[in-house]
Amino acid sequence: MPQITDERITDHPDVADVTLQGVLEALVDPVRRSIVRQLAEAGQDIRCGTFDISVTRSTGTHHFKVLRHAGIIRQYYEGTSRMNTLRREDLESVLPGLLDAILAAPDVVH
Amino acid sequence: MPQITDERITDHPDVADVTLQGVLEALVDPVRRSIVRQLAEAGQDIRCGTFDISVTRSTGTHHFKVLRHAGIIRQYYEGTSRMNTLRREDLESVLPGLLDAILAAPDVVH
Repeated sequence: MPQITDERITDHPDVADVTLQGVLEALVDPVRRSIVRQLAEAGQDIRCGTFDISVTRSTGTHHFKVLRHAGIIRQYYEGTSRMNTLRREDLESVLPGLLDAILAAPDVVH
Repeated sequence: MPQITDERITDHPDVADVTLQGVLEALVDPVRRSIVRQLAEAGQDIRCGTFDISVTRSTGTHHFKVLRHAGIIRQYYEGTSRMNTLRREDLESVLPGLLDAILAAPDVVH
């Protein structure tokens, strides 16, 4: 069983606080879209270190934080690994069709 | 019959050149989303001067230009008025569902 550490990530917005503006600001960035695309394609939670993104670690951390604050991903620790969950159902309930439309679109960065 | 002037607006991208990146960059701005929303709700072409947007004329002109270059609107002259057409079908063919999802979403700016 994976160990859940005491370190908690608590700055996830409630679904009621997810806004179109915040989600668009997050997803206008191609690296952040690539993270979301990889999560959607994996169909399971992924640890931060295993995403295929060509940015420095600190830039990556920033991108994950923007996605988290927009309500697009949820993060939690599994041992020392920071895991990422795509908040598909939350997004669908607030912004129906938006995530699917973005994921379905041809995109230059993968 | 409205007169079509000789002044032509020629910098509209072909539908093949409409990209997710360009459309998101255009629609991340709430004023530009408001313009698109007003066009969609009107269901007909609207002249630039009659949009309800609280920006200066030059800022407005800039926003229309960004929308035009992203392939979201088409502009043409009718007499001395600059008219705006929402490129719904072009957008739907390249980015299915995206415009509808954005228009359906609750949005702060109207």
